[in-house]
Amino acid sequence: MTRFIGVESLAAIVRETGIDTFLRGLADYIEADFLRWPQFHKVPRHASHGEVGVVELMPIADDRLFGFKYVNGHPSNGRHNLLTVAAFGVLSDMATGYPRLMSEMTLLTALRTAATSALVARRLARPDSRVMAMIGLGAQSDFQALAFRALLGIERLRVYDIDPASTAKFVRNMGAQGFQIEVCSTGQDAVIGSDIITTATADKRNATILSSNMVGAGVHINAIGGDCPGKTELQRDILARARVFVELEEQTRIEGELQQMPANFPVTEIWQVLAGLAEGRTDAAQITLFDSVGFALEDFSALRYLDDLARGTAHAAEIDLIAEPAMPVDLFGLLEGEREPEPRMAA
Amino acid sequence: MTRFIGVESLAAIVRETGIDTFLRGLADYIEADFLRWPQFHKVPRHASHGEVGVVELMPIADDRLFGFKYVNGHPSNGRHNLLTVAAFGVLSDMATGYPRLMSEMTLLTALRTAATSALVARRLARPDSRVMAMIGLGAQSDFQALAFRALLGIERLRVYDIDPASTAKFVRNMGAQGFQIEVCSTGQDAVIGSDIITTATADKRNATILSSNMVGAGVHINAIGGDCPGKTELQRDILARARVFVELEEQTRIEGELQQMPANFPVTEIWQVLAGLAEGRTDAAQITLFDSVGFALEDFSALRYLDDLARGTAHAAEIDLIAEPAMPVDLFGLLEGEREPEPRMAA
Repeated sequence: MTRFIGVESLAAIVRETGIDTFLRGLADYIEADFLRWPQFHKVPRHASHGEVGVVELMPIADDRLFGFKYVNGHPSNGRHNLLTVAAFGVLSDMATGYPRLMSEMTLLTALRTAATSALVARRLARPDSRVMAMIGLGAQSDFQALAFRALLGIERLRVYDIDPASTAKFVRNMGAQGFQIEVCSTGQDAVIGSDIITTATADKRNATILSSNMVGAGVHINAIGGDCPGKTELQRDILARARVFVELEEQTRIEGELQQMPANFPVTEIWQVLAGLAEGRTDAAQITLFDSVGFALEDFSALRYLDDLARGTAHAAEIDLIAEPAMPVDLFGLLEGEREPEPRMAA
Repeated sequence: MTRFIGVESLAAIVRETGIDTFLRGLADYIEADFLRWPQFHKVPRHASHGEVGVVELMPIADDRLFGFKYVNGHPSNGRHNLLTVAAFGVLSDMATGYPRLMSEMTLLTALRTAATSALVARRLARPDSRVMAMIGLGAQSDFQALAFRALLGIERLRVYDIDPASTAKFVRNMGAQGFQIEVCSTGQDAVIGSDIITTATADKRNATILSSNMVGAGVHINAIGGDCPGKTELQRDILARARVFVELEEQTRIEGELQQMPANFPVTEIWQVLAGLAEGRTDAAQITLFDSVGFALEDFSALRYLDDLARGTAHAAEIDLIAEPAMPVDLFGLLEGEREPEPRMAA
């Protein structure tokens, strides 16, 4: 049987663990996997483009485990009250090829994106950072706020979104979580006095959310929204002024804010900073920029974390995804139904 | 919610439908999709190779639906009483990117492989074919026998396998299904007087199961076993004497019996024969050869067939694979649990 964690089960696991503990644990798993970066077989994602959206498969493996995420991107889904981005994923044993865990990954992706942002900011933001500006208060924003508090202790937020319903949602959710929230009337207003700037808007255009004159010395920018070809959020000059950090360079050059820059514009892969092989922030006046697009490794870490967590809970179900004939050569016997499968060795 | 069909449910659906009807219906869906071959976005499969096996993702899409199969290949699994090849798959709507069906595909792959073989043989074998030789009586063989009876009326089988346990399994299963089975002591013996020869051995080497002197005029060869680089079953001379038919030429050149031949050796894609764009068998003395390796289109057709069949049965379960927040921008609200999601439009 394959362990299955649906949306309800994942929500229950996060509630029982406590979201702060969950996010910190998840960040630890992501960091541990970034530290062994060269051990992974990394490949570009596979994308099937349709008229109104894309469906992607994102595989990654090390010698022991194989993981993949299925994720769509359909900007028009909002009109049908469906999610723009929905996902699920699978973790398998390379020794047998059998899947051990299947999980929803819409919530899990939001959690891993936030954990990655905070993990990176913990290395790159000034240690005395207290105030975060947030531009874009969509589905990802709540998770970002929680992760930055869990990992960096950030409690003061200056926020802005063009959509009043999204703003109201954020204030309701994160107000109840005890954040000090200042709702601002423009993005420009939100960044005043902020140590960290998180941009997470969903508009699929090259829309300038943050212009260079809004960005002061010493700020860390956590740029989440520019994550596919043709979608960026930051004015080009900001990148030119900043030290830029990425997940997988070749992917970010195509999908990230980086698509605005020449191919030889210097960037640092974040795993090198985490591993102590490259410098992060080198002085307090520097602008650091994490050009986040999301990478399969983070999904792999999230599935690995969930697999370990779920072993201790009652929330995982089991599904008969893989046939278990008593005699492997007698697959047909499964159709007959009456024969009882003999116990088999665990994978 | 996503419809889920596990191993037990699929077995129940096949039993209720009747295996002959199921195989004929499946062949109709596969044929219908082959007939619209140019409409599909076809890509090579993605393979992650480990020390002892491979895990593959096989995606395919048309304008309306996206499908993929997860399948492993682990020859060493037999030692642990696990399947060498296990699979599951997903069918999604391109309009929303949401998965509509997740199914086990270990059984379903065996069924679609057999349905494809019989569908092709119905076009290529001599119409007066009555006797089939089967060399290799592993997991796939029972399904092959049933499909050839369901689509071509073949009831007389001359069979051989190196493994007595596999032979006993086949005789037990297919004897109970009413076939006239002659167990032979060699492959050479099995092919005597046969109109069709099915080779389906599992040995992952270039092992010659069928040599040219065993193959008489007018025979149709259904070669299932040569399906990955380094694995072939037929002596090279047989290909040189035969008209060779394939699924997707570029894939079969790497994976099929065809890997033994020069790159310009002529082959015909089977969809062209089904569509009347290319000739199949042109005379009764010709040797025809279907060099089958399995293609993503057949899995797509199988998922589509199952999706239609399952709608009328009580055997499909539902799993909460994809989050359904009442307000898409409020993904965080799902973690809180207390809020009841509002009804949403169906995908």
